[in-house]
Amino acid sequence: MDLQDYFSDLTRRPGCTALAELFQLTERPDIISFAGGFPAPEMFLPEEAAEVTRQLLVEKPFTVLGYSPTPGFSALREFLAERQSRLGIPAAASELMVTSGSLQGLDILGRVFLNRGDRVIVEAPNYLGALSTFASYDVRIDAVPVDAEGLDTAQLAGLLEQRRRQCSLPKLLYTVPTFQNPSGQTMSHRRRQELLALAGSYGFLIIEDNAYGELRFAGEEVPTLKALDTGESVIYLGTFSKILSPGIRIGWIHAAAEIIERAVLVRQAMDQCSNSFGQLLALEFGRRGLIEKQINKTVRLLGERARLTLDLLAREFPVGTTWTNPEGGFYTWVTLQPEVDTAQLLSHCIEKARVAYVAGVAFYAGKGGNNQMRLCYSQPSLDDIARGIPRLARALTTPL
Amino acid sequence: MDLQDYFSDLTRRPGCTALAELFQLTERPDIISFAGGFPAPEMFLPEEAAEVTRQLLVEKPFTVLGYSPTPGFSALREFLAERQSRLGIPAAASELMVTSGSLQGLDILGRVFLNRGDRVIVEAPNYLGALSTFASYDVRIDAVPVDAEGLDTAQLAGLLEQRRRQCSLPKLLYTVPTFQNPSGQTMSHRRRQELLALAGSYGFLIIEDNAYGELRFAGEEVPTLKALDTGESVIYLGTFSKILSPGIRIGWIHAAAEIIERAVLVRQAMDQCSNSFGQLLALEFGRRGLIEKQINKTVRLLGERARLTLDLLAREFPVGTTWTNPEGGFYTWVTLQPEVDTAQLLSHCIEKARVAYVAGVAFYAGKGGNNQMRLCYSQPSLDDIARGIPRLARALTTPL
Repeated sequence: MDLQDYFSDLTRRPGCTALAELFQLTERPDIISFAGGFPAPEMFLPEEAAEVTRQLLVEKPFTVLGYSPTPGFSALREFLAERQSRLGIPAAASELMVTSGSLQGLDILGRVFLNRGDRVIVEAPNYLGALSTFASYDVRIDAVPVDAEGLDTAQLAGLLEQRRRQCSLPKLLYTVPTFQNPSGQTMSHRRRQELLALAGSYGFLIIEDNAYGELRFAGEEVPTLKALDTGESVIYLGTFSKILSPGIRIGWIHAAAEIIERAVLVRQAMDQCSNSFGQLLALEFGRRGLIEKQINKTVRLLGERARLTLDLLAREFPVGTTWTNPEGGFYTWVTLQPEVDTAQLLSHCIEKARVAYVAGVAFYAGKGGNNQMRLCYSQPSLDDIARGIPRLARALTTPL
Repeated sequence: MDLQDYFSDLTRRPGCTALAELFQLTERPDIISFAGGFPAPEMFLPEEAAEVTRQLLVEKPFTVLGYSPTPGFSALREFLAERQSRLGIPAAASELMVTSGSLQGLDILGRVFLNRGDRVIVEAPNYLGALSTFASYDVRIDAVPVDAEGLDTAQLAGLLEQRRRQCSLPKLLYTVPTFQNPSGQTMSHRRRQELLALAGSYGFLIIEDNAYGELRFAGEEVPTLKALDTGESVIYLGTFSKILSPGIRIGWIHAAAEIIERAVLVRQAMDQCSNSFGQLLALEFGRRGLIEKQINKTVRLLGERARLTLDLLAREFPVGTTWTNPEGGFYTWVTLQPEVDTAQLLSHCIEKARVAYVAGVAFYAGKGGNNQMRLCYSQPSLDDIARGIPRLARALTTPL
């Protein structure tokens, strides 16, 4: 029996492996990693988590150990509905569903909306987990560039006009408008309004992934797309991974109730429900104001780490290099001279300089990113950054 | 904007709703429910869970709060590899992957193996979650009846011969061979060997879902299909949902390492990894022998509840009714007179008798089950069973 004959077409496609390699790097302690997009342990509140957990297991052990309803515990959905108003988006509990992280939210929406061959618009560069998810649904992907004002709505308008002539308009557009993964860029207020107008005119839905939006350390707040949406164009994905704990695997979908109803149905063919402990921990952290406490701590640490990273890039990186200037979130996006191949240089940088990043090509649905890299400054300490960026700069300029 | 225009073909298919209704019933305290297939709170070890959790949060809070690697924590994979030998299936950690429950294991295998239009064999009746999962992959389904010896291998052989003539052989067969959901039946040793021989001859893979296999309260142990497999025909799905806690959402896939590698890749487009707390709780429960302690407690309670349920069926249910005689697990499967419509009677039984079951039709890929019902005796107490079965019997015989 040759198992090769049995695998699906999906497993034969290239790509999808970048994230696997990322997670493996996290287990090597000798590497200074600017790769994985994780919060640092120093951002957590371990004592508060221990105390909340102790109480949960004493007061409601059967709730912790038992099944959750598929859409999530009612109390958490109500809490999330209320909390969305912090982002300017009042909601009803019926418009919220708990997910196992925001990527699962996207996977669920894939089943709710996508037929094979549907057209989807992503950003260039784009969050690579989302590119893998769309690949699972065998859809046709168009990518629109991101610049310092976020998704380029003029280019999007041109693309949409072309697709209209071809009778092949998109069904969904996926965006991380605030502190984007991987570029760190934020969509301007003007662009947000243009994007919403285009969604209305051309009839596509927007999936707004706001994993980083509450982690601003500079600049002015910009409203979420969902807050600006006067109709039902925007489906919002949230997560506790960056503001409480990635290990609890709890995110949420905020969308029209009729979308949530279908999301609940498809979820029952996937993993039925999210874990109870993570839901209850998030709820208790929320009720006690601990999420806001952790956000404040995280924002302070991110601001320091981002400033040091950007200062060192200016001092150490070769002339002709450019990078983005994030006002929040985890990432800066570095563009080297055109002839540099960051994918090829990665193993060299890991072996010789013991510094890791993610090569730019991983973040493009099509071509692009050869001379680019994502640097995540959230996990390394200030010391690691101070040692790591110069080492990375030297490795990049030393011949292989 | 009419959202109806945007939903996928999958959401337009009938079915998939039975599980949703099940979960809703669990939130109504006035109903005696023989519906949901959950362990009872009395089967849990809440004090031990509280103590293990307290230690976890004190000793390794950053592991509890941080991401897990996609295949699961190495220590848990090694523990599972060793624990599989309890079931007669020695394994390497590279052959194990942690999943968010066993249904997610099946969903992952769907992405690893299934192309649209592939042929899959299920049991009749079959676990309804698995029917929903296969529906997501748009495959063609053949169903083979289950009797007192489990899957009818003679009928399977006939079906396979027919499919061979049509050049349309199946890629996968899904089975719950021990204490089957929903029938409670167990595949005999002889049938297991016949099934494995057929898999070898006709070249299909077997997915063995062993959610209930360790919960035997009567009769003789039968080896798992995976233990009897001399080649690589069998992929094993396990779960802690019935022997530790469904709320932790932790199961596992045990398969050839090259299958696990692909499972890890597709998982990164789904939910990336399972929650850390659940993995660590399962590992610590395992190391301290608490899983075995909970299994012993569960088996004792299940045996009492099953015996009372079966006695009351004999005493109270109308003449001409038959039911299965489980030696373990959660379920008995009741067949009423041919003219009874259990789906139609369900709301009557809930409203008038305040007793719930799952109507048989939910468990068939095609037609069947009109006069059947699944009774789950794991959750109601002996008192509830003593009151519930007679009430159900009366409601079934009272005109609507």
